[in-house]
Parts: sequence; C-alpha cells; structure tokens
Amino acid sequence: MGVTVGVAVRAPVRVAWASEGRSRETRARAAGAGFEDLGTLAAVAAAADAVLSICPPHGALALAKALAATGFDGLYLDANAVSPATALRIAEAAAAGGARFVDGGLVGPPAVRPGTTRLYLSGDAAAQLASLFEGSALEAIDLDADAGAASALKMCYAGFTKGSAALLLSLRAAASAYGVEDGLLGEWSRSQPGLEKRSVRAAATTAPKAWRFAGEMEEIALTLEAAGLPDGFHRAAAETYARLAGFRGEPEGVAVEEVVAALVDGERVLRQGDWD
Amino acid sequence: MGVTVGVAVRAPVRVAWASEGRSRETRARAAGAGFEDLGTLAAVAAAADAVLSICPPHGALALAKALAATGFDGLYLDANAVSPATALRIAEAAAAGGARFVDGGLVGPPAVRPGTTRLYLSGDAAAQLASLFEGSALEAIDLDADAGAASALKMCYAGFTKGSAALLLSLRAAASAYGVEDGLLGEWSRSQPGLEKRSVRAAATTAPKAWRFAGEMEEIALTLEAAGLPDGFHRAAAETYARLAGFRGEPEGVAVEEVVAALVDGERVLRQGDWD
Repeated sequence: MGVTVGVAVRAPVRVAWASEGRSRETRARAAGAGFEDLGTLAAVAAAADAVLSICPPHGALALAKALAATGFDGLYLDANAVSPATALRIAEAAAAGGARFVDGGLVGPPAVRPGTTRLYLSGDAAAQLASLFEGSALEAIDLDADAGAASALKMCYAGFTKGSAALLLSLRAAASAYGVEDGLLGEWSRSQPGLEKRSVRAAATTAPKAWRFAGEMEEIALTLEAAGLPDGFHRAAAETYARLAGFRGEPEGVAVEEVVAALVDGERVLRQGDWD
Repeated sequence: MGVTVGVAVRAPVRVAWASEGRSRETRARAAGAGFEDLGTLAAVAAAADAVLSICPPHGALALAKALAATGFDGLYLDANAVSPATALRIAEAAAAGGARFVDGGLVGPPAVRPGTTRLYLSGDAAAQLASLFEGSALEAIDLDADAGAASALKMCYAGFTKGSAALLLSLRAAASAYGVEDGLLGEWSRSQPGLEKRSVRAAATTAPKAWRFAGEMEEIALTLEAAGLPDGFHRAAAETYARLAGFRGEPEGVAVEEVVAALVDGERVLRQGDWD
C-alpha cells in the first residue's frame, strides 16, 4: 500500500524514502517505484515538506516519535489503521517536534487502479495534504472534520470487513471442533448461499496478513471501548488473527482447512512481544 | 416457532400443551393451532409419549427440570438455542426423571412453508423423533451423531447470522458516536454495496427479538469457549442485544436510527435478572 500511495503523489512533487534498516524486498520495491533514497529518517526529515506514515498500526506511534526527534516541522500524515485516541497521541508526538498533523485512513486495496482506493483525511491541514494526490489513482477525501474522524471512519469500516472475516473463520473452526463442519456447510448452502465461498476467501486473503491485522483489531477494540460500545468483537478478532500469524510470508491462497486447523489447535499464536 | 413445530407433527399424533401461567396471546395461538390444552405440565407429562421444548434459551434447563420432577419418562426433545454443554446438562436433568433425551437445533423462520426450516437432531433417539415430522413443512434432519452435535450446529450457524448483525449495528453506532456515520455510509455505498441495507434490516428484524437473543449469544460464547476459541465476539453480541431489550414487543421494522441511538446511549440495558 505504501508504495502505491507514494506513486500517487502528483508531479512535480518529489518522493523520497529512508532505506536504513529496511529489507532487500522493500529496497527493490522503492527503487522500482522511482523513489529517491535519502538513507536515513533524519535526512528525509531535513529535506521534506511533508511526511507520509503508512505502516502496521503497532509501529505508527514509534515512527511519529522518531521523526519528531529529528525536529521535523512540516506536514505529517498518519494514514495508519489506528483508533482516534491513538491518532491523537500520534498527533501530540508529531507536534512535539513542530510538525502539523493530518489524520488519515486508507480504505481499499493498494491504489493501482483509479476508483478502488480512498484516503480519508481530517484535521486543519487535510485540504493541503489532499492536494498532493489530485488526479491520481488514490482519491483523497477531506472529511472537513477534526483530527480523529478519518481514523474513526477507517476503524468502523475495517471493523466489519476484517471483523466479520474473523468471526466467520472462528465459527467454521468451532464447527470443525465439534465435528459438525459438514452439517454447517450443508445448511449454509441452503440458506446462506455465498458464505462457504466467503469463508474460503477470508482464509485465503487474511491468513498471510493476519500478523498485522491483530494489532489493527486491538485498535478497533479501543475505538469501540472509547465510545462506550462493546469491545469484545475485536478483542476476539485480534486473538483469531494472532493464531494465524504463522502464515506470514505465505502467498495469498492459504486453504481454509489449514486456517481452521490453526485456529482449533491455537499453536501458531503471536504474542504482543513478537509484533515489535 | 413453537406453534409451527407443533403444527408440523404428523397425523394422527395428537399435540397437547399446558396453558397454566401462560399469556392470553399464547393461549389464542395454541387454540388457533388446534392443540389440546391439558392445563398443567404434570398432566401433559402423564399423557405424552414425547415432549418438545422450544423456548428462549435461558429457560431451557428450568423447563427440563420441571418436567423431570413430574417423572416424565418418554422422549424429550430440547430444540433450543443452547450450547452443547448446556444441552448435556439438560440431558442429565431430563434423564433424572427417566426421559430419553434428543438434542435439537432449529434453523430458519417459523416452519410455515416447506423448504425454509430445518430441525437438526442428534442423540440415540434422533431417528425416532425425526419420524414425527415426516411429510411436514419442518424438515427433520438426523445428524447421526451424539447429543450435543445438533446444538453445536445451531450455535455455529446463529453465531454468524446474529453475531454479524450485532457487529454491524455496533460499528454503525460507533461511527455515529464519532460523527462519521455519513462518511461510513458513503464508503459502504462504494465498496460494500448492500451493507447499509443489511444494517437497516438487522435493526428492523433483531431489535424486537433482542431481549431473547442476548441469552442465545451467551450460549454461543460458551460454545466457542469450550472449544478453545475466542468467546469475545458473542459476549459483545450479547451486550449489544441486551442494550436493545427495550424494543421487546414492538412490531418488526424498528428504524436503524433508533437502534443506533439505543446502542450509543446504552440506557435500554437488560440485566440477567430481567430475563427470567
């Protein structure tokens, strides 16, 4: 996703990145996209007018702090899947270095084809940030609201797409554990057409990314909790995805039978310490 | 549902019920269905070869105990939305009076039209019980499995239909609480067609029944917990439905705005003590 957002920045704005400590795969992706490699975060901070943060949610606050430590005082977009409360903590961290914060939420697949992907924005400088993406494959939408709104929208959206996928897989796993998976599939085929296919697709597409979905589900739980709503759906979804963390790095298309087995035996559990 | 199951019993088997302590509406429904009123549970137990228990899940165990206290030693079907573990406790209670237990799970709307509704059955006497419904609008399916399997199937099935409805309504409520409901509906209309309509339908159809769904969600949570799977989805769904208990008795078609408001303010909360 990050690469496609960088590519969507309109000419003649230059896009740079910091390769220090990053993997060979990431370097190849950035080079392929034509991004200028400035080496270190400090060098990027010194050269840039705006910084775009797109990373797994559990790393978003640390990145903002690292950038603030360089004294970066330009525009700082956090477009990560974090709760409004976390977004505001990130805003504080960024402001401590002098930056102007923009709250963002990305919805959709990597922004390759126009019409598929939205970047929701809120906060005082949202319009200014949005102008960077004019005419690109990434549609930037200024919500004309306070910082936190874009993150809230992203959380509520992903709360259903990824939350219902975790729910569905957990229930198929429960049916397997009780020896009634065939019976459940039979009933689905009669009264819930499409649900079996949906469970197969949920397994195939979420398992390889589950390691980073766990943190996103915790952020969604925090979002509901802060609004006085039940947070248990997404605590359970986080646990579901944590059990699938062992599929990290596998190509898309993991078999639902494998996912069900991993959920039932619960052995592939990722703990908080492993995320960082 | 209970009335339609009684009506589905094949002739010439007679169907009786006990009106003691029941409401005027229930009496009218039973009379309309042509059921013979034997007055008390004890009279029914003395006359019947088989007893069918179809009630809100939180009342299922108490009913089995009350019947066992009469010494009923016929066939006892529990077709309620309870966890396999609760079903086995009900089985024990029924067996204490001498009855043969059949585990059941109903899926679908009240069995008025053929092809809409299944009664899944498990346990030693499942086939015998199934024969009562031959040729009727209610399709009885013998899972050929131990008692508990039919309940497990029902739990896993309702865990998604009712669980995902609670998830969807809670997320729409969260969006409302954060002031981004319009933004969420806008994104849904682009990338999740049908989801807004689904939230409207979920509100309309679940709110009037939410008072009895809360207990069912707790049973589903127990089902997942006993299988070593995350129980939080359905603890949260129980809390969601408990907040909607105030819509009990309203006609189907409650507005989603009303449901969202009730979830956000959380004032219409039903406590365990109110269920019984």
